[in-house]
Amino acid sequence: MLKKVLVANRGEIALRIVRACHDAGIEVVVAHSSRDRDSEAVRLADRSVQVGPATSIKSYLNAAAVLEAATQSGADAVHPGYGFLSENADFAEACLAAGLTFVGPPPAALELLGSKTSARATMSEAGLPLLPGSREYLDPDSALDLAWSIGFPVIVKAAAGGGGLGMHVVHEPERFIDEYLSTSSTAGMLFGDRQVYVEKYLEPARHVEIQVLCDAYGNAVHLGTRDCTLQRRHQKLVEEAPAPRLPLELLEEMGEAACRGAVKAGFQGAGTFEFLVGDAGRFYFLEVNCRIQVEHPVTEMVTGIDLVQEQMRIAGGAPLSIRQCDVKLDGVAIECRINAEDPKRGFTPAPGTIQEWVPSAGPFVRVDSHVRPGYTVPPEYDSLLAKLIVWAPDRAGAIVRMKRALSEFHVAGPGIETTREFLMELIEHPYFHTADHSTSLVEALTS
Amino acid sequence: MLKKVLVANRGEIALRIVRACHDAGIEVVVAHSSRDRDSEAVRLADRSVQVGPATSIKSYLNAAAVLEAATQSGADAVHPGYGFLSENADFAEACLAAGLTFVGPPPAALELLGSKTSARATMSEAGLPLLPGSREYLDPDSALDLAWSIGFPVIVKAAAGGGGLGMHVVHEPERFIDEYLSTSSTAGMLFGDRQVYVEKYLEPARHVEIQVLCDAYGNAVHLGTRDCTLQRRHQKLVEEAPAPRLPLELLEEMGEAACRGAVKAGFQGAGTFEFLVGDAGRFYFLEVNCRIQVEHPVTEMVTGIDLVQEQMRIAGGAPLSIRQCDVKLDGVAIECRINAEDPKRGFTPAPGTIQEWVPSAGPFVRVDSHVRPGYTVPPEYDSLLAKLIVWAPDRAGAIVRMKRALSEFHVAGPGIETTREFLMELIEHPYFHTADHSTSLVEALTS
Repeated sequence: MLKKVLVANRGEIALRIVRACHDAGIEVVVAHSSRDRDSEAVRLADRSVQVGPATSIKSYLNAAAVLEAATQSGADAVHPGYGFLSENADFAEACLAAGLTFVGPPPAALELLGSKTSARATMSEAGLPLLPGSREYLDPDSALDLAWSIGFPVIVKAAAGGGGLGMHVVHEPERFIDEYLSTSSTAGMLFGDRQVYVEKYLEPARHVEIQVLCDAYGNAVHLGTRDCTLQRRHQKLVEEAPAPRLPLELLEEMGEAACRGAVKAGFQGAGTFEFLVGDAGRFYFLEVNCRIQVEHPVTEMVTGIDLVQEQMRIAGGAPLSIRQCDVKLDGVAIECRINAEDPKRGFTPAPGTIQEWVPSAGPFVRVDSHVRPGYTVPPEYDSLLAKLIVWAPDRAGAIVRMKRALSEFHVAGPGIETTREFLMELIEHPYFHTADHSTSLVEALTS
Repeated sequence: MLKKVLVANRGEIALRIVRACHDAGIEVVVAHSSRDRDSEAVRLADRSVQVGPATSIKSYLNAAAVLEAATQSGADAVHPGYGFLSENADFAEACLAAGLTFVGPPPAALELLGSKTSARATMSEAGLPLLPGSREYLDPDSALDLAWSIGFPVIVKAAAGGGGLGMHVVHEPERFIDEYLSTSSTAGMLFGDRQVYVEKYLEPARHVEIQVLCDAYGNAVHLGTRDCTLQRRHQKLVEEAPAPRLPLELLEEMGEAACRGAVKAGFQGAGTFEFLVGDAGRFYFLEVNCRIQVEHPVTEMVTGIDLVQEQMRIAGGAPLSIRQCDVKLDGVAIECRINAEDPKRGFTPAPGTIQEWVPSAGPFVRVDSHVRPGYTVPPEYDSLLAKLIVWAPDRAGAIVRMKRALSEFHVAGPGIETTREFLMELIEHPYFHTADHSTSLVEALTS
């Protein structure tokens, strides 16, 4: 079992990991930037180490500084959270070389699944259905030929992409070459890898993902589905578990496929298989996320399983304590991401100082947030203020509870705008009520 | 179904009921004293009505003013919460006479169970085991004879008592008559009824209660047990569900007994049967609480059932939607009551203004509280600041999580002292860990 974990992250997820460590009886050290020195994660950790200035590249992305902090503080493991170094195979490798446990998959699995093209190839071998598309990097003309053959619209994606960045939908063949080259160039800047691939663009569709847990001994279980269809520019806004209005057999088939794929890839830890589900009720593998997801609480609420504690158990070498038959899904959970953004100005970040902060509470409501009164939203990092999660025995009850919870959430301060009211609009939308929403709903509401 | 409910209460329970109304799609009006005009319950209600000044007797206990507020605001029902008018048969009767639904049992059941002697007689008829004691009011000499015959120590209790008031343990026979007369006199002052009775005092013992739900059609289910053994002067400090270290058959027997007793008494709504469980593993009926209990969230956390919503469904005339076989107990929940009291000064109330308020949060933690930064703890009412509730798959996990949650709870302000550290001492006590604690533990720690 792990004894002392260094958290190499910030915001709500750093706090989430601090809590999981304490819930598991593990000591915890938070590595933070100068900007975050007064954060809630720092306050609640057993110890904290400043690893650099506010700029991420010099702090949360500074692998050498994080490793030194871990070694100096006597940690035996590093939890990278999500984003930053969490899916960086080199960093995972460097942890191991320094005698530290990396709370995440082995470097080889990160490498394999970090490239979406090699992930697609591996999953295809494991028998997972893929959308028609390219299996390797193609020159622009060959890519256009392929796009014609699979039919427009298509989506051009960076092989090394992630977090909803580095992808572009192409509806018109005459724009294809331009978009292909520009996505490739953006990918080079963002991820240091210009490789892109082409995939059939399915619309309307639903984003459905499967949470898996895998130990070091080849055991894998899945913890059911999450629907993350409501996105704006590939950024998730609302997530729920389990995915609504899908046949049980389909969900089970997806769960089994994810476990099969995870074992094939040598995956360990907590991971997420993302799928698109089309109108015809067929599913297609998109990618694997090799980290804890922002939306993991909805799975926790319907399974009663603490995913971050499970990550640490697995990293500590324990075999899975859960068999597939032990996983019981109970009720429905919905999460809304409350961001410091102004929906009236194209969702531009609206940083400022939060003077009044009264998060929702009460029965079957959970708020994961690092904010407290007096918190200044920093310009350097993402704009997530809080994840508001509710649970109810059924979906209708969860929707009403989410409306209640959103309406009681009170945030105020000079310059502060949030997505709360926009989220209310989504939750109250008739398509969401009947679970008839698709990936195009948010665009329809915001354009 | 109820359409508009008037809440005749304050503090965390008023807020709890406001949330339940909104979760159930019911409009809600809060009746409040002048002191509570800026409360969270008022902020979140659809409407509020001031019913009197800060003094309870002129506001929350002012039946006429509450009834007028209900009628004037167009409410169709009154939810009395706990304390105040919640178990007042005359008030329930007056609600009905005014054409309002009283969210609670019928007046006749309140009357019958409101007197502990008639409750004991009824439950004895229903076959529930009682501790040896008096069945009716006895003159002091006859009571002493009875006390001798059942053996000291005995406890003298007010027939109309409640909330842990009006009871006295007598260890020495020579002090019996004095204590009997003084308890009777106190009972007259507190409850307007001098009748007292004598009961065998069992020590060590465990306080175990059963939550029941009964509809208007004679259906009753129980939602398992709560252990409320950790009390200080008959005031509960820590509660958990289910009761630990008791044989499953005993728990089931108690549950069946409670349902039988509830039906016998013509009970409707949400109620609690309190039992003492002795060392020899036998249980004895103590009393019925005809209201929502402070500690109801632990039952909600292990059953997934919203008890306040169930109260309103039943009051609205719906038959029980839950059968006994639908009740699944999952995991363990613990609640700690954080009071504005100073344990170093004999738990005297420590009111003041709360400047910093950062309640615990994160996975499987719930805080029911009406406090927000800037809240002034009023001298007129009880000193409950927050109920901190945690859940985990097992008791050991729930204890560790409670330690974490207690340690992150941050309250500060001039004059403010809380019971947080004392609760930590209880939770960390070896007897609590092994569930070997009894009613005498708190006394041992505080005397």
